[in-house]
Amino acid sequence: MIQFQCDYTEGAHESILKRLTETNYEQTIGYGCDDYCEEARNTIRRVFGVPDAGVHFLVGGTQANATVIAAALKPYQGVICASTGHIFVHETGAIEATSHKVLAMPTSMGKITAAQVSHYCRAHYANSDREHEVQPGMVYISLPTELGTLYTKAELEALYQVCEEFHMYLFVDGARLGYGLMASDCDITPEFLAAHCDVFYAGGTKMGALFGEAVVITNKTLNQDFRYMIKRHGGMLAKGRLLGIQFQTLFEDGLYWKLGKHADQLAEQIRNTLQECGFSFLARSHTNQVFPILPDDLCEKLSRKYMYCYQERIDNSHSAIRFCTSWATRPENVDALCQDIRSLSAK
Amino acid sequence: MIQFQCDYTEGAHESILKRLTETNYEQTIGYGCDDYCEEARNTIRRVFGVPDAGVHFLVGGTQANATVIAAALKPYQGVICASTGHIFVHETGAIEATSHKVLAMPTSMGKITAAQVSHYCRAHYANSDREHEVQPGMVYISLPTELGTLYTKAELEALYQVCEEFHMYLFVDGARLGYGLMASDCDITPEFLAAHCDVFYAGGTKMGALFGEAVVITNKTLNQDFRYMIKRHGGMLAKGRLLGIQFQTLFEDGLYWKLGKHADQLAEQIRNTLQECGFSFLARSHTNQVFPILPDDLCEKLSRKYMYCYQERIDNSHSAIRFCTSWATRPENVDALCQDIRSLSAK
Amino acid sequence: MIQFQCDYTEGAHESILKRLTETNYEQTIGYGCDDYCEEARNTIRRVFGVPDAGVHFLVGGTQANATVIAAALKPYQGVICASTGHIFVHETGAIEATSHKVLAMPTSMGKITAAQVSHYCRAHYANSDREHEVQPGMVYISLPTELGTLYTKAELEALYQVCEEFHMYLFVDGARLGYGLMASDCDITPEFLAAHCDVFYAGGTKMGALFGEAVVITNKTLNQDFRYMIKRHGGMLAKGRLLGIQFQTLFEDGLYWKLGKHADQLAEQIRNTLQECGFSFLARSHTNQVFPILPDDLCEKLSRKYMYCYQERIDNSHSAIRFCTSWATRPENVDALCQDIRSLSAK
Amino acid sequence: MIQFQCDYTEGAHESILKRLTETNYEQTIGYGCDDYCEEARNTIRRVFGVPDAGVHFLVGGTQANATVIAAALKPYQGVICASTGHIFVHETGAIEATSHKVLAMPTSMGKITAAQVSHYCRAHYANSDREHEVQPGMVYISLPTELGTLYTKAELEALYQVCEEFHMYLFVDGARLGYGLMASDCDITPEFLAAHCDVFYAGGTKMGALFGEAVVITNKTLNQDFRYMIKRHGGMLAKGRLLGIQFQTLFEDGLYWKLGKHADQLAEQIRNTLQECGFSFLARSHTNQVFPILPDDLCEKLSRKYMYCYQERIDNSHSAIRFCTSWATRPENVDALCQDIRSLSAK
Repeated sequence: MIQFQCDYTEGAHESILKRLTETNYEQTIGYGCDDYCEEARNTIRRVFGVPDAGVHFLVGGTQANATVIAAALKPYQGVICASTGHIFVHETGAIEATSHKVLAMPTSMGKITAAQVSHYCRAHYANSDREHEVQPGMVYISLPTELGTLYTKAELEALYQVCEEFHMYLFVDGARLGYGLMASDCDITPEFLAAHCDVFYAGGTKMGALFGEAVVITNKTLNQDFRYMIKRHGGMLAKGRLLGIQFQTLFEDGLYWKLGKHADQLAEQIRNTLQECGFSFLARSHTNQVFPILPDDLCEKLSRKYMYCYQERIDNSHSAIRFCTSWATRPENVDALCQDIRSLSAK
Repeated sequence: MIQFQCDYTEGAHESILKRLTETNYEQTIGYGCDDYCEEARNTIRRVFGVPDAGVHFLVGGTQANATVIAAALKPYQGVICASTGHIFVHETGAIEATSHKVLAMPTSMGKITAAQVSHYCRAHYANSDREHEVQPGMVYISLPTELGTLYTKAELEALYQVCEEFHMYLFVDGARLGYGLMASDCDITPEFLAAHCDVFYAGGTKMGALFGEAVVITNKTLNQDFRYMIKRHGGMLAKGRLLGIQFQTLFEDGLYWKLGKHADQLAEQIRNTLQECGFSFLARSHTNQVFPILPDDLCEKLSRKYMYCYQERIDNSHSAIRFCTSWATRPENVDALCQDIRSLSAK
Repeated sequence: MIQFQCDYTEGAHESILKRLTETNYEQTIGYGCDDYCEEARNTIRRVFGVPDAGVHFLVGGTQANATVIAAALKPYQGVICASTGHIFVHETGAIEATSHKVLAMPTSMGKITAAQVSHYCRAHYANSDREHEVQPGMVYISLPTELGTLYTKAELEALYQVCEEFHMYLFVDGARLGYGLMASDCDITPEFLAAHCDVFYAGGTKMGALFGEAVVITNKTLNQDFRYMIKRHGGMLAKGRLLGIQFQTLFEDGLYWKLGKHADQLAEQIRNTLQECGFSFLARSHTNQVFPILPDDLCEKLSRKYMYCYQERIDNSHSAIRFCTSWATRPENVDALCQDIRSLSAK
Repeated sequence: MIQFQCDYTEGAHESILKRLTETNYEQTIGYGCDDYCEEARNTIRRVFGVPDAGVHFLVGGTQANATVIAAALKPYQGVICASTGHIFVHETGAIEATSHKVLAMPTSMGKITAAQVSHYCRAHYANSDREHEVQPGMVYISLPTELGTLYTKAELEALYQVCEEFHMYLFVDGARLGYGLMASDCDITPEFLAAHCDVFYAGGTKMGALFGEAVVITNKTLNQDFRYMIKRHGGMLAKGRLLGIQFQTLFEDGLYWKLGKHADQLAEQIRNTLQECGFSFLARSHTNQVFPILPDDLCEKLSRKYMYCYQERIDNSHSAIRFCTSWATRPENVDALCQDIRSLSAK
């Protein structure tokens, strides 16, 4: 069975394993205070052009989301996100566990707009009984989104401006950041991203690390005492250097971006094949996720050899599914998939 | 600088790194549902003699503590522990973050007794205004404790009985379980432990794994829906197999116990040397932590070459400190330390 | 200015004030353990036909909602409600403050259906990754709803059955219960209600008391230790007898139902007048809330003399507003309003 | 049975009931936005000399404590208090319910000192691993304390200074404020109190109101958006004017202080009688609580006619108990008690 159902089916890029093995018997102090972490923090600051940012290494995405959001919000505040947002649908209430409401907004293709957010906030503050409602305190977006789509520079800038106007933080979930920024249709650079939000993270788990998310906090107020928050949320890894070593490896020479581009190109090959065969898509993007709408019998046939993700039912005989490529995807497996799609849909 | 300040200064046992490397490019499904995890769960069930237990792999100790305790308690209940307990002093309120009070009890050498707990509960239920107080719902102990001490079979049995009497769960934090059960003065076996509590964990982080704690839940009610709890607390590792592979390696052929004994024996060597030199101890045990009371000038001299943990001030000229050995401690480093203790204290 | 904007603009029914004054200097023990509370609990058990139910007096609705829901749910569970539900929109995240997600469902006229709930639950349990989502643990409905509408016996019974099927509690918010059960089109009796849910409350605040909600818990498991929950949520009134005296007065001789009918009839008079004048309604019911859709200039004219509630914009020149009658509404004020509606809309 | 077990056994001062009755049928808007509340807020600002303070009326003490503390603390912070503090022992974890730890300190007679707090904070910030501990963010004291004792001006000033030094809020629980400030040995004035803390409350429940606590927030940052916090904690009374009317009555002409002095003088009469009879006291003060240490047989005899509070066992044959006077205590009942103490202890 060849797996395309997600981007965390393999272990880690070999250079990461190699580095972990080489340093295995060194003795370091714990909790991210070692030299490897410090080096990785500096590398990341350099790559994103934010020399003063706080950089913190957490183990997973749900943990990163909950820790950042809980650090940012006052008790009576909530976080705005798209109704498809990971924090709204796929984290078992991890945000509510920190006692905050997720304020879900209707979304088109996984994105929300500055106009939507502005309208919502304006209505809240215009309400004389507003203290009976949750106050919006943060906007959470994903780059790329759950549907693989991307915000443009202009959209990100507009959202950031609305956040400033209504005294909200802007938080960008970059679990798949490398796949996003390397997409052929992405006009956002690492530096632009870091300059247009208060906090974001560059995901490692889905981008070639064994695990780990690098949280970058450019807003000084938010960064203050953030390590207390990490510990409180069970996110402070005892052997913190494991994270430092992995992120240093990913970012020191651009491996992160190279892996992103690898996956994007293979996804594009699948996308092109599907399009040539005449299929349409639930969402269009040039990142590592492909969401074709396929006849159910084709899905069934593909499922004998390939694992993919079921997305949603379209009509009586069609479903939207997801193929995901990753840093580890082998070109020969993509070739096989494309070949099978062609031959199965030709009949 | 030679490090004795804690038991998580190195990476992982080489057989773990080897196994991670060998399996690196295999594709598995996520979140602990893969075959490696299933295999490790069965191995652990076998080792502890609990074929029906739930076994869950979490990343760290604070996370394991908070997730288990939050799963066990009703909203108005708290967890009883020694005033030295890790959850009371060293976790930045991670238990309170789940909205539960930690009910700290006076302790002698890190332990609490069945009599203490019984007295507390009896007083609570005898109080006609008891609903103005937090109801005790769980007892948390560590094996070994923060001071390296051990509960006996009789003590554990008595605590478990009190817990049953007052409808409380008994939870054993085994972050250093291997060092505890392998101590020369420990009369508790793996099977006995598992049969005399509702939930415990066998720590990996301090026992030769890169990271990870294996939570074993023998109480069926507590185990129900526990995976929701893990996800909600940000503890469900995407590449769950990393934990399965590590715990399978540690437990399949007794490596876990071998590593525990290794550290205990080296600690005993340090302990014997200190005793021969006439020093007393803050706490006595035969596990991997040594707590001598030393003259401040000797501490100062040792600190030029060795890292240790400062524990507490004893008097104007003496301090209690902690030396910690581990699965990775090299005999030659212990020899050097012992030699230096002897020569420095001889003067 | 004559106020129709809500049903809590006056103090309390005069017989309540009288009784509070008469008993003022008696000495009683606190926290609801006095004889007045016991008497009121028994009266309420009798009226609703539930001799074994737990009856608890809380001060306000948000407090009652949060306390009941937090008592019912396991940490990873959420509560299903209509997207118009009070707990979803008007309580500043009081439910999320107890760390639970409110699972809002699309609604027609403030109600949700058994079919909706069943479909949602079925989908949840069919999902192999369900532990990544919040588990539904309770259904919350209002009787009458926020839009004054009512569930029928059949609808309530069906909801209760779905709840049992999926191991969920059914909770009925009866802040306006008297206005609901006394409505001319309501086929639910007090006994039927109590027999078809796990917990409900009969509101006092909007029904003639100074304040207070009588929470009735028919489910024994949910009732256990509920007083701890009340205290923990800051809802245990020191002078608890104030609540006992009020609810005894409301329920001993049917005053509660009489006051409900009074308001419903006056609301019907307003409704009929509006209908005669040719206006339509946002929602239709026979309870104490009236939701006409009116031309903006009529609204403006009415607002010079009457306070009402703005509900929502319908189109460029029309708005839906709410008139609320209550136990205290004077017939002459309703006459005046009807007269003005007639004359202003005649022009 | 004559009740001395607490200070909330009766209803309300007659002038409060009278005023509630007179205003009963007036129509006002809800949630504390009416004119009565505004008037009472201004009166309280005047009485305490804080023209710019936020004044908020809550229903009860536990609610006030939880709301204020949750508003003040960052997620990883805790609140320091005496180990006898109400929030630590008598509120069923209401503070922990907001996810904050109560940092209990050893106490002498219910008080904590500036030196204690300073030492604790200094140690916290000196610890290089401080992020593994809860950060102190607020100090909570009671005036008078649970044992009826009082802070002096100098002690309050010193505590406030330490709080400023370590960026903590100082919060004074004044559930019995009138009994405290009117005590013959109290050198703190209303103005001094308000000028030497960030937030305090003047309790109504124990001081002649039916219920209610007036929270006064002098710290502007803490006051911001506080109404959201009240609503979120279920503390926003729909008929808010009930609180405004009560507090206006208590404070407009000094009734609050008069009632405080009444109770203090009657308590002093009991205290003097006990002293004359040769009994000692668990704690000494001149407020409305008296804590004699009495032979068990005397306690038993008194209990046939009087209700008092059991405090703690002193030795085999003696117990400390509490007599509480209040705004409603009748002099003839105190005379009777004193007479009985004299005659029973003479034998």
